[in-house]
Amino acid sequence: MFASDTAVTALGEGRYATEIKAGWDVAGNANGGYLLSVVARAMLDAAGRPDPVTITAHYLAPGRPGSAIVAAEIVKRGRTFTTATGSLTADDKRLMQVLGTFGDLSTPIGPERVEASPPDLPPPDACSRVEPTETFPPPFMGRVDLRLHPDDSGALNGSPSGELRVRGWFRLLHHEPIDTIGLLLAVDAFPPTAFNARLPVGWIPTVELTAHVRSRPAPGWLRCAFTTRFVTGGFLEEDGEIWDDTGRLVAQSRQLALIPRA
Amino acid sequence: MFASDTAVTALGEGRYATEIKAGWDVAGNANGGYLLSVVARAMLDAAGRPDPVTITAHYLAPGRPGSAIVAAEIVKRGRTFTTATGSLTADDKRLMQVLGTFGDLSTPIGPERVEASPPDLPPPDACSRVEPTETFPPPFMGRVDLRLHPDDSGALNGSPSGELRVRGWFRLLHHEPIDTIGLLLAVDAFPPTAFNARLPVGWIPTVELTAHVRSRPAPGWLRCAFTTRFVTGGFLEEDGEIWDDTGRLVAQSRQLALIPRA
Repeated sequence: MFASDTAVTALGEGRYATEIKAGWDVAGNANGGYLLSVVARAMLDAAGRPDPVTITAHYLAPGRPGSAIVAAEIVKRGRTFTTATGSLTADDKRLMQVLGTFGDLSTPIGPERVEASPPDLPPPDACSRVEPTETFPPPFMGRVDLRLHPDDSGALNGSPSGELRVRGWFRLLHHEPIDTIGLLLAVDAFPPTAFNARLPVGWIPTVELTAHVRSRPAPGWLRCAFTTRFVTGGFLEEDGEIWDDTGRLVAQSRQLALIPRA
Repeated sequence: MFASDTAVTALGEGRYATEIKAGWDVAGNANGGYLLSVVARAMLDAAGRPDPVTITAHYLAPGRPGSAIVAAEIVKRGRTFTTATGSLTADDKRLMQVLGTFGDLSTPIGPERVEASPPDLPPPDACSRVEPTETFPPPFMGRVDLRLHPDDSGALNGSPSGELRVRGWFRLLHHEPIDTIGLLLAVDAFPPTAFNARLPVGWIPTVELTAHVRSRPAPGWLRCAFTTRFVTGGFLEEDGEIWDDTGRLVAQSRQLALIPRA
């Protein structure tokens, strides 16, 4: 289960013990959204707030299965939000540095104006379920239920669409309900857009990932869309939108990834 | 000058003295991009790298003119990048918390693929220069040279376009060259998109701002475009693109802003 595989145990003074679990990996390295979920869980506990509102992770070194420590430090406790820093360390090596602001997203407030729509997807059963392998697709895909839009699944079978776009459905396994921490998993769960674009790249490490959570998701599938517009300067961005089953935008994400020299 | 108004003086052990200068304010509070530039300058010095690559600021309290301290702490020195945290404190009050990764953007590398174009703008002299007042437009506009697209300048004279979009030209005063720190000013220099949208909001405080710098800008004007697609859950995002005079994307930004209850 996602909840137990991202659990943390308070050690006092903002330190938390955790275990990077096997099976959440891509080529042996734990998925970035999975690691962010672990760190966010500790930061939320330290902050005493239920939901991440905006959270940024800088990825410093790959995470391997085994024990790790999250250190959370409160920067400011305000009336509405609490801001904290977090870090993930294993074997005395810093894997991630995180900065987040946390609050309570249980009650939607304010004016609404949405200039976009959820991605148009065939029903989940008419999409391509991504099945894990030992290489690609990675073992991580055995931990989530991810269905790609047929137009965007070509990268899995050697016929990429050419478009810098990946759309599909996402849910946790065994109907585990998804909360706002689970959204941090969803924003980094899909194959990179670049895999559909015939770019001369293999490994595309994430430098930084920021997620904004707008609302707690309704139960059910999430509709997800990821696009890239700028491959330039040795980097690309990947913009994500996550919509819940009621058609509500629940999270936005952007990551900056590195295109290693070919 | 922007460079001298954002200068920092090393005090040792990652601490820097600075002075929040008068005149860079909006309703008495220093502009967020200006404050980020100050903090970034200290973090770059601590990191020993020339350029911000990705930097995230969480805004905790308004900055008033006067002396302040930046504390920069190196998280990881890598081969290509250095990651650091930064904070800005004045009168023992934490104003900002920052996380950034720094590198050298002097040599563009890798494949290029750009799925967007610079905003189409009339020449600067055919756009509306934003002139400072004591209220709105704010004094800050006297520190930069900002020319709004005529279609997007309606908010300044009481006839907002209705579109969640602001486009225009940006440069520093007196032909001061703009570097990658100056881009951190540019991404937060324009009037909020929401001012064009007839939303029932006045003050729209930034919770978090992330900027990705892709390239050092060529000398000359910057073409800038800011758009919002999601006003929901009590928040809105504002996405920025900054292009240089040669038509190259030099920075992307996204900020999360709060829509206070009316």
